[in-house]
Amino acid sequence: MAEHSTALRSYVGGRWQAGDGEGTPLHDAVTGEEVARISSAGVDMAAALEHGRRTGGPALRELTFHQRAALLKALASHLREHRDELYALSARTGATLGDSKFDVDGGIGVLFTYASKGKRELPNDTVYIDGAVEPLSKGGTFLGQHIATPLRGVAVQINAFNFPVWGPLEKFAPAFLAGVPSLVKPASQTAYLTEKLVELMIGSGLLPEGSLQLVCGSAGDLLDHLTGQDLVSFTGSASTAQKLRAHPAIVRHSVRFNAEADSLNCSILGPDAVSGTPEFDLFVKQLVTEMTVKAGQKCTAIRRAFVPADRLGEVAEAAAARLAKVTVGNPANPDVRMGALASLEQREEVRRSLKALLDVAGIVYGDPERVEALDADAGRGAFLSPVLLRADDPTRAEPHAVEAFGPVSTLMPYTSTEEVIALAARGEGSLAGSVVTADAGFAREVVLGVAPFHGRLLVLDRDDAKESTGHGSPMPALVHGGPGRAGGGEEMGGIRGVLHHLQRTAVQGSPKVLAEITGRWVPGAPRTQGVHPFRKSLAELKIGDSVVAGPRPVTQADIDHFAEFTGDTFYAHTDQAAAEANPLFGGIVAHGYLVVSFAAGLFVSPEPGPVLANYGLENLRFLTPVKPGDELTVTLTAKQITPRENADYGEVRWDADVTNAAGESVAKYDVLTLVAKEDR
Amino acid sequence: MAEHSTALRSYVGGRWQAGDGEGTPLHDAVTGEEVARISSAGVDMAAALEHGRRTGGPALRELTFHQRAALLKALASHLREHRDELYALSARTGATLGDSKFDVDGGIGVLFTYASKGKRELPNDTVYIDGAVEPLSKGGTFLGQHIATPLRGVAVQINAFNFPVWGPLEKFAPAFLAGVPSLVKPASQTAYLTEKLVELMIGSGLLPEGSLQLVCGSAGDLLDHLTGQDLVSFTGSASTAQKLRAHPAIVRHSVRFNAEADSLNCSILGPDAVSGTPEFDLFVKQLVTEMTVKAGQKCTAIRRAFVPADRLGEVAEAAAARLAKVTVGNPANPDVRMGALASLEQREEVRRSLKALLDVAGIVYGDPERVEALDADAGRGAFLSPVLLRADDPTRAEPHAVEAFGPVSTLMPYTSTEEVIALAARGEGSLAGSVVTADAGFAREVVLGVAPFHGRLLVLDRDDAKESTGHGSPMPALVHGGPGRAGGGEEMGGIRGVLHHLQRTAVQGSPKVLAEITGRWVPGAPRTQGVHPFRKSLAELKIGDSVVAGPRPVTQADIDHFAEFTGDTFYAHTDQAAAEANPLFGGIVAHGYLVVSFAAGLFVSPEPGPVLANYGLENLRFLTPVKPGDELTVTLTAKQITPRENADYGEVRWDADVTNAAGESVAKYDVLTLVAKEDR
Repeated sequence: MAEHSTALRSYVGGRWQAGDGEGTPLHDAVTGEEVARISSAGVDMAAALEHGRRTGGPALRELTFHQRAALLKALASHLREHRDELYALSARTGATLGDSKFDVDGGIGVLFTYASKGKRELPNDTVYIDGAVEPLSKGGTFLGQHIATPLRGVAVQINAFNFPVWGPLEKFAPAFLAGVPSLVKPASQTAYLTEKLVELMIGSGLLPEGSLQLVCGSAGDLLDHLTGQDLVSFTGSASTAQKLRAHPAIVRHSVRFNAEADSLNCSILGPDAVSGTPEFDLFVKQLVTEMTVKAGQKCTAIRRAFVPADRLGEVAEAAAARLAKVTVGNPANPDVRMGALASLEQREEVRRSLKALLDVAGIVYGDPERVEALDADAGRGAFLSPVLLRADDPTRAEPHAVEAFGPVSTLMPYTSTEEVIALAARGEGSLAGSVVTADAGFAREVVLGVAPFHGRLLVLDRDDAKESTGHGSPMPALVHGGPGRAGGGEEMGGIRGVLHHLQRTAVQGSPKVLAEITGRWVPGAPRTQGVHPFRKSLAELKIGDSVVAGPRPVTQADIDHFAEFTGDTFYAHTDQAAAEANPLFGGIVAHGYLVVSFAAGLFVSPEPGPVLANYGLENLRFLTPVKPGDELTVTLTAKQITPRENADYGEVRWDADVTNAAGESVAKYDVLTLVAKEDR
Repeated sequence: MAEHSTALRSYVGGRWQAGDGEGTPLHDAVTGEEVARISSAGVDMAAALEHGRRTGGPALRELTFHQRAALLKALASHLREHRDELYALSARTGATLGDSKFDVDGGIGVLFTYASKGKRELPNDTVYIDGAVEPLSKGGTFLGQHIATPLRGVAVQINAFNFPVWGPLEKFAPAFLAGVPSLVKPASQTAYLTEKLVELMIGSGLLPEGSLQLVCGSAGDLLDHLTGQDLVSFTGSASTAQKLRAHPAIVRHSVRFNAEADSLNCSILGPDAVSGTPEFDLFVKQLVTEMTVKAGQKCTAIRRAFVPADRLGEVAEAAAARLAKVTVGNPANPDVRMGALASLEQREEVRRSLKALLDVAGIVYGDPERVEALDADAGRGAFLSPVLLRADDPTRAEPHAVEAFGPVSTLMPYTSTEEVIALAARGEGSLAGSVVTADAGFAREVVLGVAPFHGRLLVLDRDDAKESTGHGSPMPALVHGGPGRAGGGEEMGGIRGVLHHLQRTAVQGSPKVLAEITGRWVPGAPRTQGVHPFRKSLAELKIGDSVVAGPRPVTQADIDHFAEFTGDTFYAHTDQAAAEANPLFGGIVAHGYLVVSFAAGLFVSPEPGPVLANYGLENLRFLTPVKPGDELTVTLTAKQITPRENADYGEVRWDADVTNAAGESVAKYDVLTLVAKEDR
C-alpha cells in the first residue's frame, strides 16, 4: 500500500503543507502496514492562529447565523456524497462498517442538526439576544439586555483517536455556527482519516478561508500563542486534560477550556427487571453492544454495570452467551462484529488496566491475552477479545477508578437504591449513565440521585427501546460532557454549544439605544406611525413601525354574545353573583379571548398585502380585568424582523399592548406573522 | 478601642471558633489602630467542607427553589434592620457612609433580587427544567430533556477586601438559591466586617445549619480537599486568580472555578459629545465618581478614559476642576467625599503602579505622595489623593496593562471609531465599559465592537442618565465578570448565577419516564380522564389529568360572523378570491382567534370551582389552516403545577391541542391558569 504511505499534510494559512522531516509512521490497525507518516515540524502555529483570527473570523462574522447554518447544511450534504471515501479509510483504524457509520454518519448528522437548529433557534442576524430585557429602573428609561457576540479568536479543537470524523465535526459545527474559526488537531493514530475529512471540507469550496485549519502532528508551541479570545476544546484522557488545563497560557488568559475525558460510566439494572422481562434483555444487549461497538473505545461506553445482587449470576451468564456470538476480526469481512483496537499501543494500555482490575475482579468472559481473529493475522493487528469482569465486592476502589479503554466492563452487585446511587457517584463524574427499568419511580429516584455526577442519563425500557439511540451515543441536541473526572465540560447541547463560543455581555442603556444595538424594539423605544405597518413589505418595514387603533367599547352585550357564540360560559363572564365572589375579579369580566379578538379587529389592515398570515402568539398575559363598559385601544409595534434565507418572506414579531380608558395595559403579547419580502 | 481588638472567629462545623495563636493584626484604615487579629490556625478545613456537604447540602436540597427564595427575602429584611451595625464597622475600612451603603445596601439588594427572581423565574420544585423537550425519535417514544440539579459539594467563596459585605452576599445568594452550601473566606484586611455580616446571618436563625460557613484567615489546606462536586468563586487580583486556577485539586477534579479579577475598564466619550452637551458633563462626572467612590478600589472602576483627540484638554480641565472639589479625609466627617484606602499596604501598591504609569503619562490632577486629609491624621491613615493621568500616546503598553487599584485613571486620545475599539480591546478583557454618547449609531458600533472583550457595557446619555446606575455598579440581574484578564468568569446575571451551581444533565427516556422525573407532563406521557380537571383543586390535580372535548364544526357562517363581530375582516377570512391567492392558505380560513375561542368554549367547565382565572397563554402556534366545514376537538392536559408559597392558590399550566377531523393539530399552546389549593 505504498501509495497511501505518504506524509500527512496540515492545512494552515490557506494552504496544504507537509511537515518537515521523516515523520512518525502510523499503522493499519488490522494489518500492521504503514498507512502514513505524520509530522507538524515546520508548521508556524502562531501564524496559523493569526490566520484564523484575521481571515477566518472576520469572514464568518460577515455572515448571519442563518447563513452559516445554510453553509453547514450544504457541507453536510457534500460530505454525505463522499462518505464512502471516509468509510474506506476508516476500516484501516480497525472499525467495522457499523463503527464507521457511527463515526462518519454520526458526524454528518451533527452538521445537519446544527444547520437545522441554527435556522430555527437563532436569529437571522449576527448578534444573539440572550434572555429577556431586564428592567433596571422605575421610570423605564434604563434597561439591561444580555447579548452574545462571537469571540474574536480561534477555537482550537484537540481530538481523540477514537472518532476521527465525528470528533472534529461535533466541535466544528457549533464553532462555525457561532462565527468562530476552528483549528483542528486530530490525535496522530488516526489522523489520516481526519486529514481526508478536512480535505473534503476544504474541497467543498463552501467554507470561508480561515474558518477551518488542520494541524496533523504534534501541537508544538500552539498553546503558547493563545489569547483570552481563543478557546480550547479537548477530548481525550483525563491526564492529558489536566495537563492542558494547567497550561500557562490557558491559565494566564483565562482561555475557555472545555474537556471531555473518558469516564467510568455506569449502567444500572432495576430491581423490577427480573430475568424474562424486556428490561433484563435490554440491559444485557446494551451492555454487550457498548463493549463491542468501536471495540469499546468510546468515552461513553459502560465500564461499570450494576445489577441487583441476587441477579448477578444470571446477568453474567446471559451476557457471556451473547458475547460468545461476537466475531472478532478483519472489519472488511461482513461476518465480523468487532474489529481491532486503533493500535498495538492501545491494546497494551488496555491490558495494563485489565491487570489492575483483575486484582479485585474475576473474568466472566474473554481472555485478555488471546483472541481468534477472523480473516486477519492476529499477530499483526490490534485485536483483543471482549472481556467481561465480575467484582463481587463493589466497595473496592479499582472498578470505579481504573478505566480499560477497550471492550471491557465490570459487573457489580448492589442491594438497595441508596447503595447503587452511592456506587454510581464513586465514578466521580461521568459522561453518560443508564438505568434500565420499567419502574418509573425507581428511574426517578436514581436519575435525580446521580444527575449531579452525570452529563447525560438514559432511562431504557420497553417503551423507548425501539427508538432509543442507546447509552453510548451523544446526541447533538443534548449536552455531551460530565463533571469531575469526565472533564467538567459541555459540548453540543444544541444552541448551548454555540453560546459557548460567544461572549455574553450585559448591555445597559435607554430603550432607544438597546433597540439600535440589538435590532429588536423594546418597550420605551421610539415608535413610528404613518402608513399602516401591515402595508409594508419586509423591505420597507422597520422596527418601531406601529399602529394605534381604537378605542372600542366592550359592552355587557358583547360579553354575553361571545359566551353564547363560543360556548365559553365560564361563570366569571356570565354569572354576576359568582363573578363578584371571585377573589381576583369582583364582578363580570370580559373573556381574555374576546379582548385579543377585538384587538385583532382593531389593528388589522384587511386588504391583501405583504402580511401573509398570523402563525402564532407568545407571552400573552392578561394584566387588568376588562369590565363591561371599558374601552380598548391597541398599539401594535414591529418588534423583530427575521427574513428567511430561502423564501420570499420572513417572520415579523409584533408587540401588542391593549390598554383600557385609564391607559392601563389589560393584555400584552407578541403577535407572530409571516410577511412577504417584497410587495406582491 | 481595646474592646474591638479581639480575635476574629470562623464559623465552621456549626460553631464559632477563634483561630489558634496570636493572629495577624488588622488596622483601622483611617486611624491606624488595631481593629482585630485574624488567624485560621486550628480550623479543620476538611471537616468544614464535609460539614457543608453532609449537613448543609442535604438541608438545602430538602427545600424548593421558592422556599429558599423566601428565606433569602427574610434574610435580606433581617440584615436591613441591622445595617447600622455594618455601617459602623465599615467606616473603619476607610469607607464613607456613601461607600458603606454601596457595599451594605448593595449586598442586601442582591438578596432581595434573588428572592424575587427565584420566585418568579424558578419552579416551586427541587429540579430545574432547562430548555425545551428535544425530540429524539420519529415515533415520539424517545425524548430528551435537560434538567439541572444542585451540585453535592460546597461553594467555596474567596472574596476581595474592597466589598466585605456585597462580595460575600453576591456569591452566597445564587449558591443558596441553587441549594448549594457556602463557605465564605473573606480577604483578611476587612474580614472583621464580613465576620459581623456572617454573625448577623447566622444569628437570624433563618439559615439551615451548614448552609453558610466562614473561615477568617488563611485558607490553609482548604483547596486540597476539593472534589468535582465543589465550586470555587474567587474575586481578587489577576495573579491570585491564576494561582488558584492552576491549583492541583482544582485541575485534577475539574472543579468549577469562577474568577472575577480587577481589569483595565474603559470609558469612551463619543465624538458627538462636545463641550456643553449633557454627555460631555455626564462623562466627566462619571469619571470622577468612579475614581473616588470606595477611593477607586472597585474592580469595575474606570482605569482608561478615551476621549476624541481634539477634546482631551477640555476633558482634562473639567475633570480636574471637579476632582478639586473632592474632600479627602475621615469618612466619619460628613464633608468628606473620599475616605482612605483599605490599608497602608494597599496605598503602597497603588503608588508602585502609579510609578510605572508615570513613565508614559503626565499628571493632570493630584499628587501621589501628598494629600490633605480632613479630620484625620494623614500620617497614620491610608489616604491618597485622586490622581488623574494623561497619556498622549495611547499605543504605549502601560496604560492598558498596569492597574493602580485606587483613585487613579488615565485619559487617552483617539481619532476614529475603529481606533477606539482597538484601544478598548487592548485591556485584554474587562468587567465593565461605558460609552457616553447621544449618537445611537456610534453606540451600536462601539458596543458590538468591544462586546467580545466585556462582561458589561453601559451606554450613558441624556435619556438614561437620571435612572442609570452607572459604570461601576454590577447589577444582580446582569452578569458580572469578563473574559481574559477579567478572569473569564460570570457571577450573578439573575438565574444564570444559580445555574452555575447546578449540574446540567440531559435525560433521555420515554415521555412517561420524563414526566415522572421532571414533574412536568410532556406530549406522549399518559393522560388521565375522568372528573373534569377544572373541578380539581391543586391538592387533587395531577399532571396528565385531562379533558377531551368536541367535536365542534366551524362553518362559513361562524367565520363571517366572527369577522363582523370582532372587526377582524382580514381578507383570508372574508374574500374567497384573495384568500385563494394567498400562498399559505389557498382559500378561506377561520381566524386563529376563533379557533382558540371555540376551543375555550369546548374545554371550559363553567361553574364556580377551584379554577380562578386564565391569566395568560404561551407558545401558541397555528399549525394547520382551519377551513369552513372543519370540526375542532380540543385536548387539555395539566402540564405543570406550581403552588405558591404564600397564597392559597397556585399556577397550573395546561397543554392545549386543538385537532381537526383528520386528527391533525391545528393549534397548540399552553393555557395558564390560577387554581385554588383547596376546594372553595
